[in-house]
Amino acid sequence: MSGNNEFSYIGKSVTPVDAWEKATGRAMFVTDLKLPGMLYGKILRSPHAHARIVKIDTSKAQALKGVKAVVTFADTPQIKFGPMASNEDWYIFAKDKVRFIGEEVAAVAAIDEETAEAALDLIDVTYEILPSVFDLEEAMNSGAPLINEDWQKNIASEAHIEQGDIDTGFAESDLIIEETFSTSQVYQAYMEAMAVIVRPEKEKGLTMWLPIQVPNKARLIYAKALGISSEDIRVIKPFIGGAFGAKFEANLHLACAILAEKTKHPVKIVNTRYEDFIAGNPRVPMRYWIKMGFKKDGKITAKHMRIIAGNGARTVYGPAIMSTACIRIDSLYNFENVKADGFAVYTNTIPTGCFRGFGNSQSIFVLESVMDMAAEKLGITPEGIRKLNVIPSNYVNVHGWKIGTCGLVETVDKAVEAMKNRANEDVKPGKYRGIGLACTNHVSGNRGFFPTFDGSASLVRIGEDGKIILYHGECDMGQGQDTAFAQIAAEALGAKLADLRVASIDTQISPFGLGSYATRGTTVGGMGVIAGAKAAQKNLFQAAAAMLGVSSDELVARESIIYLRNQPEKRLTFSEVAKTYVFEHGGASIIGNGYYITDTVPPDPKTKYGNISPAYVFGTHIAEVEIDAETGHVDVVNYWAAHDVGRVINPTLLAGQVEGGVSMGLGWTLMEDMLTREGQILNAGFLDYRIPGSKDVPRVQSMWVEPVEPNGPFGAKGIGEPALNPVPAAIANAIYNAIGVRFKELPITPEKILRALKEKEK
Amino acid sequence: MSGNNEFSYIGKSVTPVDAWEKATGRAMFVTDLKLPGMLYGKILRSPHAHARIVKIDTSKAQALKGVKAVVTFADTPQIKFGPMASNEDWYIFAKDKVRFIGEEVAAVAAIDEETAEAALDLIDVTYEILPSVFDLEEAMNSGAPLINEDWQKNIASEAHIEQGDIDTGFAESDLIIEETFSTSQVYQAYMEAMAVIVRPEKEKGLTMWLPIQVPNKARLIYAKALGISSEDIRVIKPFIGGAFGAKFEANLHLACAILAEKTKHPVKIVNTRYEDFIAGNPRVPMRYWIKMGFKKDGKITAKHMRIIAGNGARTVYGPAIMSTACIRIDSLYNFENVKADGFAVYTNTIPTGCFRGFGNSQSIFVLESVMDMAAEKLGITPEGIRKLNVIPSNYVNVHGWKIGTCGLVETVDKAVEAMKNRANEDVKPGKYRGIGLACTNHVSGNRGFFPTFDGSASLVRIGEDGKIILYHGECDMGQGQDTAFAQIAAEALGAKLADLRVASIDTQISPFGLGSYATRGTTVGGMGVIAGAKAAQKNLFQAAAAMLGVSSDELVARESIIYLRNQPEKRLTFSEVAKTYVFEHGGASIIGNGYYITDTVPPDPKTKYGNISPAYVFGTHIAEVEIDAETGHVDVVNYWAAHDVGRVINPTLLAGQVEGGVSMGLGWTLMEDMLTREGQILNAGFLDYRIPGSKDVPRVQSMWVEPVEPNGPFGAKGIGEPALNPVPAAIANAIYNAIGVRFKELPITPEKILRALKEKEK
Repeated sequence: MSGNNEFSYIGKSVTPVDAWEKATGRAMFVTDLKLPGMLYGKILRSPHAHARIVKIDTSKAQALKGVKAVVTFADTPQIKFGPMASNEDWYIFAKDKVRFIGEEVAAVAAIDEETAEAALDLIDVTYEILPSVFDLEEAMNSGAPLINEDWQKNIASEAHIEQGDIDTGFAESDLIIEETFSTSQVYQAYMEAMAVIVRPEKEKGLTMWLPIQVPNKARLIYAKALGISSEDIRVIKPFIGGAFGAKFEANLHLACAILAEKTKHPVKIVNTRYEDFIAGNPRVPMRYWIKMGFKKDGKITAKHMRIIAGNGARTVYGPAIMSTACIRIDSLYNFENVKADGFAVYTNTIPTGCFRGFGNSQSIFVLESVMDMAAEKLGITPEGIRKLNVIPSNYVNVHGWKIGTCGLVETVDKAVEAMKNRANEDVKPGKYRGIGLACTNHVSGNRGFFPTFDGSASLVRIGEDGKIILYHGECDMGQGQDTAFAQIAAEALGAKLADLRVASIDTQISPFGLGSYATRGTTVGGMGVIAGAKAAQKNLFQAAAAMLGVSSDELVARESIIYLRNQPEKRLTFSEVAKTYVFEHGGASIIGNGYYITDTVPPDPKTKYGNISPAYVFGTHIAEVEIDAETGHVDVVNYWAAHDVGRVINPTLLAGQVEGGVSMGLGWTLMEDMLTREGQILNAGFLDYRIPGSKDVPRVQSMWVEPVEPNGPFGAKGIGEPALNPVPAAIANAIYNAIGVRFKELPITPEKILRALKEKEK
Repeated sequence: MSGNNEFSYIGKSVTPVDAWEKATGRAMFVTDLKLPGMLYGKILRSPHAHARIVKIDTSKAQALKGVKAVVTFADTPQIKFGPMASNEDWYIFAKDKVRFIGEEVAAVAAIDEETAEAALDLIDVTYEILPSVFDLEEAMNSGAPLINEDWQKNIASEAHIEQGDIDTGFAESDLIIEETFSTSQVYQAYMEAMAVIVRPEKEKGLTMWLPIQVPNKARLIYAKALGISSEDIRVIKPFIGGAFGAKFEANLHLACAILAEKTKHPVKIVNTRYEDFIAGNPRVPMRYWIKMGFKKDGKITAKHMRIIAGNGARTVYGPAIMSTACIRIDSLYNFENVKADGFAVYTNTIPTGCFRGFGNSQSIFVLESVMDMAAEKLGITPEGIRKLNVIPSNYVNVHGWKIGTCGLVETVDKAVEAMKNRANEDVKPGKYRGIGLACTNHVSGNRGFFPTFDGSASLVRIGEDGKIILYHGECDMGQGQDTAFAQIAAEALGAKLADLRVASIDTQISPFGLGSYATRGTTVGGMGVIAGAKAAQKNLFQAAAAMLGVSSDELVARESIIYLRNQPEKRLTFSEVAKTYVFEHGGASIIGNGYYITDTVPPDPKTKYGNISPAYVFGTHIAEVEIDAETGHVDVVNYWAAHDVGRVINPTLLAGQVEGGVSMGLGWTLMEDMLTREGQILNAGFLDYRIPGSKDVPRVQSMWVEPVEPNGPFGAKGIGEPALNPVPAAIANAIYNAIGVRFKELPITPEKILRALKEKEK
């Protein structure tokens, strides 16, 4: 850095780098892209929850004018695969049987969408209905219909994790709380439906336009599924209209690849919203049994959990999400004795996957409800019991997680203070008011997600006019990642932000980035960006030093000007140096190829002991609710969110993340639920599946705590997931505070409120 | 290299890297590309050869529904510019007056082409006709109407070059030939009409999809014209459907940029073929006066030329082409005393520009006609007089050009031998047969074209699966440059060709390449490719050496396998090494950023003394013609072409270049001419402007001479232009041989033949 404490861009609310393109409609999404000779694909999906495929007759569909290919399992390489190496239970199209309503059975490529749609109706599939199972506990029974024959039972995975000694912990406790909770299956409700274009290249190569959070990981998985090398798949990431965990590997993409290979034409598939609802990968619904022990003063002595997680009919990331739910909360408080038994259970329902929070949000709801229950029983304030148990900074937790910075106490204090300073309003007649607090932790990286390494890289190129392009392999899915990276790169390089562009991902040149998950983008990706920027700066400074006749150690840069530290009038612009460099080097640009490796430790497969993340994040939310006694409607009237973010990169984007997290959490808590009957989702569309609108969402007062994190870029940590995690507990605690009823099942609908109020009146 | 003499790919006719995409219609040309919100542009062109613009009323056009912008000179930055720094006489739209029929007066952007077209008719331009001048000599007269007021007279540039002493030379000569010649204005007849898309980016940036030979040079020129920084212009080079010199800077592109800036929408303009004919930049027509002295034995003693070149109404590259015509032939033979006076003359006609040969082809026609005339007079064979005067290898010519390798004698011998081995056919009644020979030289690079440097660079990236992507900044315009580069890169890197892809140019990441001109691509660009490949190989070998526990000096690579030179069973695949490297480096790829600088010397602006090219190429063509006495039709029945190419990279592509050159040359010699009356081109379309069809073109027997050139990749030199240069003289000499009539004006049409035959009969 330039040697003084003032930043040029870090901590500033610069305009998002993609704002212009998005606001003017220039941003290129998959739906906007049309390639020469492009065909349109449609997928035939199973109408049955569990059925044997007796016969597929595609002849009538094939014969339809304008149809270029009809493909089924027989047209695929017939390789088993899946997003998780431990649970490869996917085929590109159903083999022999279907396991859920929405499963891919066949696909059509035609000259237009209408023809493709019409052809679907002409595919004759003869099914033989099999017995189905939908309930989690029923599915675990030994007599239940077996959904995936490669597994002995309907359990996709189990986790049995124990640290310390819970028996001693419970024995030492003065208070034991034992409860059950359950969380619902909700939809990520991103704006852009899932879509893909695949262009076949010569021989066996494919170019895929994939709006996906993990462009490189998907390449590896898809290469396996297609029986080709990963480098034969070039992924171009177009603009993404939101993802929130939904946009990982999807059969949609592979169905499109098969059509493209078969027709030798580019093929586009855009899901209908209905298809996204029935064949996406919504949040893993979980059932909890929890038992916690406390000392009189509120100190936690032990925690024991049993979690049954709905995996759906095939495995997206259910097992990882389930095991995360088992242990991640253990870095929120200073747990010593913990045990968790988790089961990811197959049922004949939609496969479930990642959703902002990745299992931790479910467990935070449970833990933070129990914490309030304990506090009440022990006569401690909600903030008091949390501050008492808080995990310290520079501490190794019970699972080996190295907590560096932890600003949790400060977030509690800030949120409580802000809440106390609220304008006092009288409670209107017929209304109840209540305030609830919940804390959260989260990771900012996940060493367990990709087996081979943990880190990030960037390639920074300075062109002949001193303008800079940054290639990274992480993923902007609408959250503003590219803007944060631009700020970080400009700051690290000493460049003008306006001189810097961030390239969209093209795996042909972008580094192998791990992608957008686990709140890792800014933290891990940001360090990779700094590494590339510094590598470019080194080459730039060497060229400048030669021009100025000084040593490059003496140089600093700011706002695209390089100058001598002790003689700042001796200076050159980036553009002057770069032009000289490029024209003296036969047209070669200044290139910085930098990388960063985290100090994380892969978790032990069985015990999960390790150090999953280079940094850990914390936050506290407080909700104030007003409940209508007549309608049961819960209005979240005030909301305070204080987050330990290490260092603020962009306050506006950060606040946007928090507001989005609160809004999503509010929907999950009060409104949203994918209602299912016999495996059929009943509210598969925004008409029936309501998400919060602008009138449902309170003004969120965001606050930052900045304990500069050594493992983050300029001290920054992430925000994506912790912004959502504490919302259900904060609102549930507020509802309890308002009406004295403890809700342990999400969502907390007006009907449930009314029923509870009636119950109370009895 | 791998230390032995066998190449894996050099000298092999590998399939062109873009063959699949082109054959299947997947290749993306500008016409195929459609961006969100894209508008369509049309240009209003001057109907007058010379006229004052009194008034432009765009109000009616603006009011037409669907019209988004109508722009004229007033909407531009009003900056004078031009492709040549010495002759900046362009504005984006006509200022105050028009200078030729076809000049850009205004442009419209509308929602579709039809609306844009209709709007053109609604623009009212009031012109006041000015006196025009079309004839070159008339234009040079002091009383002629002045076309560009910044110049004192209608002379865009002059060249007066003299080396040695022609007076002494002529005094020593036994034979003096003094003649006049003229060459015609011909159209490059590429398949894809000129086209462009410009997308405005936020603030003042532009992305331009430019099918252009010089993406980077154009960026600099366009930045000046638009008053922005060159790095604010990102150029993406799509597939190009041929160029042959025609696709350099064009106002079309800038008109589109102005429309894009004004509308803030992407805009596409695709010329009609008519527009390409009337507002492109056809070959510079030239009039020659030449005087040459010879000794009795055929040795050249002196050459004096006067050239008047038609520059058109504004300067594309006329001055450079004219000065090239003055001196480039002086490296074909061992000239000692030369003088040339050249004039590039403004007339009220279409501006002229580059066309394969760049002035040298015009002069080769003249010189090689005179050589035959001298040989006949001196009783020497055509091949004898040429071999006597041939320029030696490792020689500095009269202009300072350092001739490295010269295989001219061998090309003469090979061509003559092949010709002598032809099947003997009886001359049919009513037909004449004749054989003609012509030699050519050419550069393989041009130090005078871009002021700042001469060289090339490449960026080679090895991804995690060992697959390679090559970024270069040169230009494939359909000639197969990318295929040659792929072969060179694979060979230099020791990679499998199938593992290597060549990226299309995107100035955001591709090196600053000088582009496709002067037969420089393979020679100079190829050396840049080797440099990048070697830089990547160094990094790859270091990683492999660490894995194998050896020194990287001991390693060699072939077909994507790295092995110990003396212990070849100790080996690793590229993929094994790359995966380890990438995953150990946080996802950073192996990058090679290499460059090459030629040892050329910029020519002195006045004397032109320097060393223009790192290598020089030579060739000999022999044509056999059969002339129909009744119709005057000249049928080229046999054709032999022997070229010094240094080293063959790809025989099929090389032969393709020669066949294309012969075909183009044949059209120029016998058929093509842009007929003009009062500045109006009369045959502006392929219905009236005939180019050779398959029945007009003979089978060409191509032969190679390979004097390995130290300044070329694996010894290779270029082929693009020399393949065309000697065709007119070879055919004209054959016609003379057949009927005893010497044609000194192109084209040699059937009418001229018939007239000559009649004249002879008298």
